[in-house]
Amino acid sequence: MSSPKTPKLTAEERETDLEPLKSSGWSEVEGRDAIYKEFKFKNFNQAFGFMTRVALLSEKMNHHPEWFNVYSKVQVTLTTHDCGGLSAKDVKLAKFMEKAASSM
Amino acid sequence: MSSPKTPKLTAEERETDLEPLKSSGWSEVEGRDAIYKEFKFKNFNQAFGFMTRVALLSEKMNHHPEWFNVYSKVQVTLTTHDCGGLSAKDVKLAKFMEKAASSM
Repeated sequence: MSSPKTPKLTAEERETDLEPLKSSGWSEVEGRDAIYKEFKFKNFNQAFGFMTRVALLSEKMNHHPEWFNVYSKVQVTLTTHDCGGLSAKDVKLAKFMEKAASSM
Repeated sequence: MSSPKTPKLTAEERETDLEPLKSSGWSEVEGRDAIYKEFKFKNFNQAFGFMTRVALLSEKMNHHPEWFNVYSKVQVTLTTHDCGGLSAKDVKLAKFMEKAASSM
């Protein structure tokens, strides 16, 4: 038995959930139903500390980011492969990233 | 006082140090004096475990990779910004990555 597909965000959820993220620097990816943000930290210690906190939640949610890191920079793309687009899981992970980044 | 610049690999070191890495799947990057490898693991736990081991050594060496991760895949590029090309630090980090990846 396969697990039920994650539902995509509804038009209403896009309004209520994506808009606040966009105000925090997230943007919609061109040609893909995904969101992107570049996080800048002071150094690698902070950048990888952030990634580690996010990795622990990701693994728990079984929902993983696409991310690129060099030194103090972390570029993140979120989408849900399961439904081929943005879902509540991406919103949850993005919100957690905001919290984790601001605590660094 | 600024620290002395890291020396680039000599022609001889390229022969002795880069050739074994190429046999392990590393390749020279087009248009940049850098090396690249894609590591594939079983899952995110292994991929991020690998990244964490590498991060600890990177921070100790103050020499950091450029890397992209999605789920079980880690794509790594190594170069030394300090000297604008490959140095012994890249060789050391690449060799450690081989050891860390094979222990996963």
